[in-house]
Amino acid sequence: MKAVMKAVPAPGLELRTVPDPTPGEGEVVLQVRTTSMCGTDGHIYRWDPWAQGRIHPPRILGHEMYGEIVAVGKNVSAFRAGDRVAAESHVTCGKCFQCRTGNAHVCKNYSILGLDRDGSFAQFVRLPEQVLWKTAPEIPPELACMQESLGNSVHAVLTEDVTGHTVLVTGCGPTGLFAIAVARTAGASTILATDVSDYRLELARKVGADLAFDPQRIDASVILERTGGEGVDAALEMSGHPSAIHLCFRSVKNAGRVVLFGIPDAPVPLDIANEVIFKGVRIQGITGRRLFDTWYRLAGLFRAGLDIRPIVTHTFPLEQFERGFELMHGGQCGKVVFVP
Amino acid sequence: MKAVMKAVPAPGLELRTVPDPTPGEGEVVLQVRTTSMCGTDGHIYRWDPWAQGRIHPPRILGHEMYGEIVAVGKNVSAFRAGDRVAAESHVTCGKCFQCRTGNAHVCKNYSILGLDRDGSFAQFVRLPEQVLWKTAPEIPPELACMQESLGNSVHAVLTEDVTGHTVLVTGCGPTGLFAIAVARTAGASTILATDVSDYRLELARKVGADLAFDPQRIDASVILERTGGEGVDAALEMSGHPSAIHLCFRSVKNAGRVVLFGIPDAPVPLDIANEVIFKGVRIQGITGRRLFDTWYRLAGLFRAGLDIRPIVTHTFPLEQFERGFELMHGGQCGKVVFVP
Amino acid sequence: MKAVMKAVPAPGLELRTVPDPTPGEGEVVLQVRTTSMCGTDGHIYRWDPWAQGRIHPPRILGHEMYGEIVAVGKNVSAFRAGDRVAAESHVTCGKCFQCRTGNAHVCKNYSILGLDRDGSFAQFVRLPEQVLWKTAPEIPPELACMQESLGNSVHAVLTEDVTGHTVLVTGCGPTGLFAIAVARTAGASTILATDVSDYRLELARKVGADLAFDPQRIDASVILERTGGEGVDAALEMSGHPSAIHLCFRSVKNAGRVVLFGIPDAPVPLDIANEVIFKGVRIQGITGRRLFDTWYRLAGLFRAGLDIRPIVTHTFPLEQFERGFELMHGGQCGKVVFVP
Amino acid sequence: MKAVMKAVPAPGLELRTVPDPTPGEGEVVLQVRTTSMCGTDGHIYRWDPWAQGRIHPPRILGHEMYGEIVAVGKNVSAFRAGDRVAAESHVTCGKCFQCRTGNAHVCKNYSILGLDRDGSFAQFVRLPEQVLWKTAPEIPPELACMQESLGNSVHAVLTEDVTGHTVLVTGCGPTGLFAIAVARTAGASTILATDVSDYRLELARKVGADLAFDPQRIDASVILERTGGEGVDAALEMSGHPSAIHLCFRSVKNAGRVVLFGIPDAPVPLDIANEVIFKGVRIQGITGRRLFDTWYRLAGLFRAGLDIRPIVTHTFPLEQFERGFELMHGGQCGKVVFVP
Repeated sequence: MKAVMKAVPAPGLELRTVPDPTPGEGEVVLQVRTTSMCGTDGHIYRWDPWAQGRIHPPRILGHEMYGEIVAVGKNVSAFRAGDRVAAESHVTCGKCFQCRTGNAHVCKNYSILGLDRDGSFAQFVRLPEQVLWKTAPEIPPELACMQESLGNSVHAVLTEDVTGHTVLVTGCGPTGLFAIAVARTAGASTILATDVSDYRLELARKVGADLAFDPQRIDASVILERTGGEGVDAALEMSGHPSAIHLCFRSVKNAGRVVLFGIPDAPVPLDIANEVIFKGVRIQGITGRRLFDTWYRLAGLFRAGLDIRPIVTHTFPLEQFERGFELMHGGQCGKVVFVP
Repeated sequence: MKAVMKAVPAPGLELRTVPDPTPGEGEVVLQVRTTSMCGTDGHIYRWDPWAQGRIHPPRILGHEMYGEIVAVGKNVSAFRAGDRVAAESHVTCGKCFQCRTGNAHVCKNYSILGLDRDGSFAQFVRLPEQVLWKTAPEIPPELACMQESLGNSVHAVLTEDVTGHTVLVTGCGPTGLFAIAVARTAGASTILATDVSDYRLELARKVGADLAFDPQRIDASVILERTGGEGVDAALEMSGHPSAIHLCFRSVKNAGRVVLFGIPDAPVPLDIANEVIFKGVRIQGITGRRLFDTWYRLAGLFRAGLDIRPIVTHTFPLEQFERGFELMHGGQCGKVVFVP
Repeated sequence: MKAVMKAVPAPGLELRTVPDPTPGEGEVVLQVRTTSMCGTDGHIYRWDPWAQGRIHPPRILGHEMYGEIVAVGKNVSAFRAGDRVAAESHVTCGKCFQCRTGNAHVCKNYSILGLDRDGSFAQFVRLPEQVLWKTAPEIPPELACMQESLGNSVHAVLTEDVTGHTVLVTGCGPTGLFAIAVARTAGASTILATDVSDYRLELARKVGADLAFDPQRIDASVILERTGGEGVDAALEMSGHPSAIHLCFRSVKNAGRVVLFGIPDAPVPLDIANEVIFKGVRIQGITGRRLFDTWYRLAGLFRAGLDIRPIVTHTFPLEQFERGFELMHGGQCGKVVFVP
Repeated sequence: MKAVMKAVPAPGLELRTVPDPTPGEGEVVLQVRTTSMCGTDGHIYRWDPWAQGRIHPPRILGHEMYGEIVAVGKNVSAFRAGDRVAAESHVTCGKCFQCRTGNAHVCKNYSILGLDRDGSFAQFVRLPEQVLWKTAPEIPPELACMQESLGNSVHAVLTEDVTGHTVLVTGCGPTGLFAIAVARTAGASTILATDVSDYRLELARKVGADLAFDPQRIDASVILERTGGEGVDAALEMSGHPSAIHLCFRSVKNAGRVVLFGIPDAPVPLDIANEVIFKGVRIQGITGRRLFDTWYRLAGLFRAGLDIRPIVTHTFPLEQFERGFELMHGGQCGKVVFVP
């Protein structure tokens, strides 16, 4: 089969022909119909220090996927050939404290598809049964593949109920845009969004932001104005930028909540007294998806009318993967989907 | 001023002319612009045993209201003449355990507007500052008056997050209809509703039920079918009928929740083992509105697009109050609004 | 090996000699050091209608156990021979909605040790790895075997935080006694307990009840007196008797919680208006243990000083199992432990 | 009366004779029986930049108090002369969003006794009814006065249930010591504590720490060892030192919680990626006490056996207040009580 992989420990990726996978015990093989790009793939492409420490070539990339099961190994009981599925990208151990107490998303021993084992930038991918997620046929393939990524945002937004609440989303990359769409569907009262890219601010408005603005050009006091002087109930940090992190703490109301998802490059000096303690705020660090509560909520959100279509800005045949990476590095895209 | 009141301890109500109220310390007088009918008013009209034990005539009825402040007493600090307000109907003591721990909706010493003190079926009503709720001018007067009633449903629906969840609402009287509209705005995935009146089922569909049916004519197994065989995440009982209560417990999934708001006439034999314990469900009894969290959420829901207009089916001048009671007793109405 | 079993579909049990079990894939064999009796075993002994519908002889009873792993099958990764373990009695499917969302205690497809497959009233028992629970060597064997039963009470008491709260426990059988001991260790402020047996009330006092009384002889208004007129924060119903259920609802304060664990024989007429709705209470049905949060909490409670020793009133060699059943049927015991 | 006050805007305090206070409407006068020192009083004594910006002399200090009501103003309904009371130090507005939604501890308009209005380092103090807290006569006066301070720790510890959980407390000043005592009473399984003062570490052991150590001398890996390699469920930061803050984040288990109460002098660089996000932790900023839930819990904890007596290390007549400040500045004390 054809696969896009990090073949050698150096920048770039290669399209190669490799043997088709076969399922082991408790595994299936998926024929990949759609697979989408994540910022993590960009780090691996560029071969930055993080990637050099984490990835052991050769490795097929890709952890956002949708397709059809074409082969089923022994002891797989809940799925069969022909099922249309997406995949949770975290393969968890099932035996650590976190896994045994409903927090498998922070399993201490998990591996990740496309990083620690071969992923979905290929015609076929081998998957353990535990990560499979049956996907309603109503969801179009180019949206179905990005449920893993969307799930991060569902997890972040629904940490607590947002219905009737005011929400700030800092950072309008794909996960920020997903967060806006989810908050809109969940009945948030007012959604404010920030980014420094006009392209992304326009997408933010399309998926439901009441006001999307560049805080370098518009004073952030607009957040207070638009919330009756109160500040927001929930600030969702989806960018990792220190200025956005501080904006979240400054904008959240006393006793409100700040959800941290974006990964900063370096430690961020927090004024813990004034940003956290005297405001009595609570903070939730978000990684991955709650297994599998987030997936069930996500399926329900689609039925409730969640519309993420504007976020898919480009679709390419897998062979043209370089075009996707170019777009992502330039910041002129939402989500990019590959069709193997 | 003109007022509709229970003048003597007997069935029926009378339109009388009484002195205009003046505000005491910490009080205001509201010029009533709109006021709506509640089922409780029907009990008082009919003078049933409950009403005979609770109401001490003469008493002006009415506890759902909207209007303009026209007089302000001493020591009122947060409101002034000209403010457009609705009113929380529960006047709470502020000193009991419940009031001091965020549960004033079950204050042990509360009195109710229109029951324990004069209400809003009148041109003017005297109100303590603590119950006033500033209302956004975007909300039309005929909807603004029913926020108190809507608040019961907001409280019931938002006991826990319903975003992405399946919901059953049993009973499509006004509070059931409000519950459907709230759940829809909150991003519920699938909303199923039951009633025995075609008139009400039609309203249920208008405000967002995916399936509204008469369980005497359609087998309730449709609930399982429409929830993938799982049962609902949340069952909201808004009717008080024993068969509806049992339907909620039968339809809720294991580890789901049942919210009880409708008041049964008599004790209901519950199969606690099979309906509650073995399913591991949790049950929340709902009365009133959380003070004032429910009101803030309600305001946010209007901004999020909550549409309750189809539920207001009739508007009459206050003098024609008898027409409202006739409609309510016949069940051929949603909410009825009076204009004093 | 020797085993106590329901050999034929009739009242009573028999001590028989049967082949030693061998572990299958993912299983271990435990040499049973201690195993304790549960009320369920009494139902099976008496062969009541419930037991006749549920149990398919021949079946070795016993689902509360402690011992040493003596044989390990293929694909067991977290345990090895020599480990001292107790066992969760519910063998859950891992694939249903409840299992995938942290509510495996209400798995839709679970089987129970000693009911649906052979249990621990024997010298050896075969167990799937997933139910094993490593047990600290500090916990004496005659207490270690009853962790499964204790877990029910830990689950019931810790549904919400009881620290500094007033608690009522109705029913002082073993699970009620465990609940009292857990609430004491958890820092409950005042623990009130009821039963009709002087024997059990005396045990209730030993494990920490501030006041243990027979509500047939002492007026239940003492509950209000001992809680400053407020009623209790949490009422834990551990008996299944209708009068105790009503006592819980009458005694709980407005906005308090009622936890239902005891299984009534028949439907119980609940005054839903006055017992649930107007008080704004929440109710939690309890079955089994949260997997495995309850077990971790339980281990922590032992380290915190939980003392359940007074509840173990009798220990017999397994051969003398009839003495245990006689005691249980007479109500003159706490927990009874068998030593195979 | 005699009062200890900041008479002029300069370092130090003075004992002066001032007129006795009289109660206004809704107020009482308390004869102060005991009053205790807080770290805040030390800032005001030293007249540091924070104090210079906040305090407007002349001002009588003192916000931890216990005494007897000796005069009652108009419109006080729940208290009368002779009542023994402590006082919540935050006088909240009752009208802001936070006050109206159960979060008055972060009221946007509150004033503080002993800072913004005269306090309890005096023979008498004037108090609004809303801050009074009836105190059980069983609590000795030298403990009753420190309920306000203890309340901070009750709030911090009981943010979530700690029963059966492992707890780290960094900082063994009075609020850290209170936190240890509360966690012990609440059934924490293992309590680890750190400080750099041997004096305080010894007090930590006295009130219930299983292990109290100086992280400058003992490697913090002992925390992992004592928690079975897991890290703690809850890390309570009571010192404000950056190294302690980082120790909390390093020691908490994935999906655990960090509670921040100690006030750092300057911004703290947080490694948000590794300390918060990838661990999936939640953080709660703590200030003040939940009104009045914390006070009710606190009263319940005393009944549950909470023992804070070892924390009161010194008692002086109010005239000898200088001795108290000397001890506090030297760090050789727990709580210091003054008797006016």
